[in-house]
Amino acid sequence: MTYAVNPAIHRIEAPPIMEAQTWVRPGLRNRTLLNLCQAVPSWPSAEELDDEVARVAKLPGTSLYTDIFGIPELRQAIAAHMSEDYRGSIAAEEVCVTSGCNQAFAASIMAIAKAGDNVILPVPYFFNHTMWLGMLNVEARHVPAIRGSDPWPAVEDAARLIDANTRAIVLCSPNNPTGSIYPPNVIDAFFDLAKSRGIALVIDETYKDFRADPAPPHGIFSKPSWQDAFIHLYSFSKVFSMTGYRAGSIIASTRILGEVEKILDCMAICAPHISQRAALFGLTSLDAWKREKIATMRARLEALRAGFSRPSLKYRMVSSGALFAYVEHPFDGETAKQVAMRLAGEHDVLCLPGSMFGAGQDRYLRIAFANAEAGDMETLVDRLVESQG
Amino acid sequence: MTYAVNPAIHRIEAPPIMEAQTWVRPGLRNRTLLNLCQAVPSWPSAEELDDEVARVAKLPGTSLYTDIFGIPELRQAIAAHMSEDYRGSIAAEEVCVTSGCNQAFAASIMAIAKAGDNVILPVPYFFNHTMWLGMLNVEARHVPAIRGSDPWPAVEDAARLIDANTRAIVLCSPNNPTGSIYPPNVIDAFFDLAKSRGIALVIDETYKDFRADPAPPHGIFSKPSWQDAFIHLYSFSKVFSMTGYRAGSIIASTRILGEVEKILDCMAICAPHISQRAALFGLTSLDAWKREKIATMRARLEALRAGFSRPSLKYRMVSSGALFAYVEHPFDGETAKQVAMRLAGEHDVLCLPGSMFGAGQDRYLRIAFANAEAGDMETLVDRLVESQG
Repeated sequence: MTYAVNPAIHRIEAPPIMEAQTWVRPGLRNRTLLNLCQAVPSWPSAEELDDEVARVAKLPGTSLYTDIFGIPELRQAIAAHMSEDYRGSIAAEEVCVTSGCNQAFAASIMAIAKAGDNVILPVPYFFNHTMWLGMLNVEARHVPAIRGSDPWPAVEDAARLIDANTRAIVLCSPNNPTGSIYPPNVIDAFFDLAKSRGIALVIDETYKDFRADPAPPHGIFSKPSWQDAFIHLYSFSKVFSMTGYRAGSIIASTRILGEVEKILDCMAICAPHISQRAALFGLTSLDAWKREKIATMRARLEALRAGFSRPSLKYRMVSSGALFAYVEHPFDGETAKQVAMRLAGEHDVLCLPGSMFGAGQDRYLRIAFANAEAGDMETLVDRLVESQG
Repeated sequence: MTYAVNPAIHRIEAPPIMEAQTWVRPGLRNRTLLNLCQAVPSWPSAEELDDEVARVAKLPGTSLYTDIFGIPELRQAIAAHMSEDYRGSIAAEEVCVTSGCNQAFAASIMAIAKAGDNVILPVPYFFNHTMWLGMLNVEARHVPAIRGSDPWPAVEDAARLIDANTRAIVLCSPNNPTGSIYPPNVIDAFFDLAKSRGIALVIDETYKDFRADPAPPHGIFSKPSWQDAFIHLYSFSKVFSMTGYRAGSIIASTRILGEVEKILDCMAICAPHISQRAALFGLTSLDAWKREKIATMRARLEALRAGFSRPSLKYRMVSSGALFAYVEHPFDGETAKQVAMRLAGEHDVLCLPGSMFGAGQDRYLRIAFANAEAGDMETLVDRLVESQG
């Protein structure tokens, strides 16, 4: 006889990325696998960042806890960076450092939603979002994230689903999995909706640095009362190629951060001190490196888009941006998983099926191209054409 | 109008250590504060560990995610270390690396208990344990952690409180806050109880390395079916003076780790890669350093115990061990918080009142002496005597 498990956890499916690795059958065709499965840039962290980590490792204090909210210099630097980037007004005390953006989401949602509550979540979604909501017994109410020719959700769809138990609208822009960059006026309208209904707008903006447009992603932070309805989530992982360091942030009202503080104390105590130093260095000293890497990623995206214009290709790009493209496959009789397994097993292309990101996504595949050189994109299209038989 | 917070979070009191800092009134008597408030050793991490962190910072891969469960070398090293220390049998796949022991507790409890369930928790308790249980709406059913002259809980007390909704017994040994090291046969009896009732025994053994006795802390890991009822939690923070790195572990059945994996994916993705390397170095290369530091901590404990034998001292040591002593104050008319505030404000001694660790603890103070030199203990006793008026 052994002990029971929490049924709310047991019913959640395991993270899907590991399963996808098992679909690969290497060596059969003597070709290199195109791994388009995970949104991790193909370059390492900056040498200067590694040097800085090596330097701070030997400073007294690095081995010690920080405040739960993080080191003051980093909170200040995040506030300054975001205030500039969004042309808005964010104070250091409205910033909390986390061990990555998943933790930022986990703590934020727990701070506002209890079992039996619901949140509005566009489909396809980032799978960790639904996993965590399910674990907390918070209902995810789905609206389409792609609506006709617009690869973003509609405010009216969300408005219809809000009831007395709705606590938040959760968005992700630039979107994972679709790559879609929601227009600023759409995001602003979601904020207005949330504020008017007394709920929170939670946006995961992990990929905001990979946008091409230099204008702010939205105008929320320039509104005088953004604190009344906005929670901003961010990660240092992708832009500084430091996924292993686990550093992210929450920007929210000091009122809600007072709740987040208690949760993070139990979940983490604090983000790793040395990782906070790495993030601080990135924010304050790696601007040129960051711009160069973002330009490289843009070139990959443009190469992918160019590849998809090949007339013989029957796959269609639905949306793209940041590190992702969302692609419609041409096979009427196959599920997305069947197509993805066939691509991995027979055509040396590993990508995730849309069905891993929610119901109704069986026509789609997610291509996470951060790991592929611009020169690989023609090869990718060759293999997709090959899969058409 | 703004959005609501989760009432289960809102009703939880903020972590108490920050409040205690506000009780200090420095400079009044021109004496150095004896800060006995937090269980953080007074020495920095080993220079060799800092060097190792600096070295691995420059290795390719350190900036990348690890498996959710951690790097295989560290899981293997933890399994080997624990198998030796407990003279038991633990496989690498029964080990999961976490970002510290609070996260280990948070993920483990969430894996087994849902809202409305209950766990047995001795009082006084480690406050993060009750905070997290409260956030999950899991009831903490309290048994006394000190029973007559025995500073450990009684198996019979726990047995009486178990019902159909009980999911676990949670212990902490060496105990925070009491310093009590539970006898192996008591811990083994708790395991037998848990196993016979189909629930889990969860033990936070963060301080196990600070025991004086070279015998195993308990015999559970040598039982052939420890996996049926045991979850072991550990931290690298204290023994290697690396609180800021956030590294800990869970040892449990692969069945329960399958649930933990999903939770950690949402809460952390993985423990910071560089911190895992630091923990691995500690486990495999810092044995002499560790032994020396443990001996220093033992000397502090012995000095504290010697100080408490002063006949004029009316404070009584109830239990002590690892990094803590639990002390009964002599003031009939004062709460523990009043005494602790007076000690901080008038006698330059900062320690936490027993009441921060649960109901019925108003006669007690926790002395966390990791930060005080052996030579400070007489000064501490001088000031305690001074407080007697």
